[in-house]
Amino acid sequence: MAEREKSTIVLFSGELDKAIAAFIIANGAAAYDHDVTIFFTFWGLNTLRKEELVPVKKGFLEKMFGGMMPRGANKLGLSKMNFAGMGPKMIKHVMKKHNALTLPQLIELAQEQGVKLVACTMTMDLLGLQKEELIDDIEYAGVAAYLGDAAEAKVNLFI
Amino acid sequence: MAEREKSTIVLFSGELDKAIAAFIIANGAAAYDHDVTIFFTFWGLNTLRKEELVPVKKGFLEKMFGGMMPRGANKLGLSKMNFAGMGPKMIKHVMKKHNALTLPQLIELAQEQGVKLVACTMTMDLLGLQKEELIDDIEYAGVAAYLGDAAEAKVNLFI
Amino acid sequence: MAEREKSTIVLFSGELDKAIAAFIIANGAAAYDHDVTIFFTFWGLNTLRKEELVPVKKGFLEKMFGGMMPRGANKLGLSKMNFAGMGPKMIKHVMKKHNALTLPQLIELAQEQGVKLVACTMTMDLLGLQKEELIDDIEYAGVAAYLGDAAEAKVNLFI
Repeated sequence: MAEREKSTIVLFSGELDKAIAAFIIANGAAAYDHDVTIFFTFWGLNTLRKEELVPVKKGFLEKMFGGMMPRGANKLGLSKMNFAGMGPKMIKHVMKKHNALTLPQLIELAQEQGVKLVACTMTMDLLGLQKEELIDDIEYAGVAAYLGDAAEAKVNLFI
Repeated sequence: MAEREKSTIVLFSGELDKAIAAFIIANGAAAYDHDVTIFFTFWGLNTLRKEELVPVKKGFLEKMFGGMMPRGANKLGLSKMNFAGMGPKMIKHVMKKHNALTLPQLIELAQEQGVKLVACTMTMDLLGLQKEELIDDIEYAGVAAYLGDAAEAKVNLFI
Repeated sequence: MAEREKSTIVLFSGELDKAIAAFIIANGAAAYDHDVTIFFTFWGLNTLRKEELVPVKKGFLEKMFGGMMPRGANKLGLSKMNFAGMGPKMIKHVMKKHNALTLPQLIELAQEQGVKLVACTMTMDLLGLQKEELIDDIEYAGVAAYLGDAAEAKVNLFI
């Protein structure tokens, strides 16, 4: 049996446009039967946050980080032309008009297609994010696990 | 006959410095006889816009996007130290002083060397960019075509 | 004898968070016995600058660039939530609290592990940076050398 191709994406950035690009590539690769891993680190982790405020015990700095960072895929800004939030609204509007999937839909599709979503535990520690605050059905690992996947993959992107 | 090495670059960013980096890497790889593809998506597409205003029929939002985004390789800003346009002027000045190729020259060289420049049709749809507005001798394709190239390439970068 | 895996990273960005991510991945790969190269280009070069002001002869523009760009790993800003320098302080604070290595320590570890740190000579020329201004025990090369390494590597990232 032929081995399945592997692809990995590190999603470091916490912007809507970059997250959309990451998931479109990931979903495309999964549709071609690649084993795909997205490794969420630093600001990319915000993509995985639940929208609702989850009550967890935190220190002062962790609370500050948690409060300042966008809570989930629907709250991300743009890397360009953000215009204090108008840019994301415009993008979402044109995406809807063109029947393009929204980021939450892209994430759902990725999970249905078996794309492995991995939250970087080291960043979670640093930013004080806890498992309860992130969406369900994701995995937790460190850079070693990412490197293991990447060394076997043909396409490795850092976004 | 040995198969040619393949390299792909996704140019997502619409900044002068990143576009220059992408084309320097692409031209270098082409000089080593790699088959090189640059896939222009999101803000990266602005690199391929013609400088002159091309009269095409557009909706309101598409016109707004078209008006707000830089028109072509000569109009891009910097990712750092843009200083409302002074930064790009300074970079262009030092590049000229050092006889480095300008971005438009780097693009021309890439086309002469057979680097495949591919505009992402999905982004064109979203941002309302039409073929008439982009430079000549480029290709049009979606993420599937990019993934096909990337799966055969050894060097795949996301810029 | 099995050949060692190779990994390369282009560090284009000059931000603390991205530099930390690059060095964590590089150090991880080196710990797995990969041959790792980080190629510092454009703003990424600032990571390699010495903290002290090194007196070298420069033209006017080169002096301006040199003065405006951060001098070394301790002076980099964040790509997000920089807040005029408060963000980096907060990140450094939580990293210390979690006993995470600082960027200067990550760089030292990389050098101890034999990660090859390469300064892009073309960018040095453009920005007027001279060897005396960069930290010791690094190499100097152009894009051709990078491409040579990347073509043999399995993991190639652009950060």
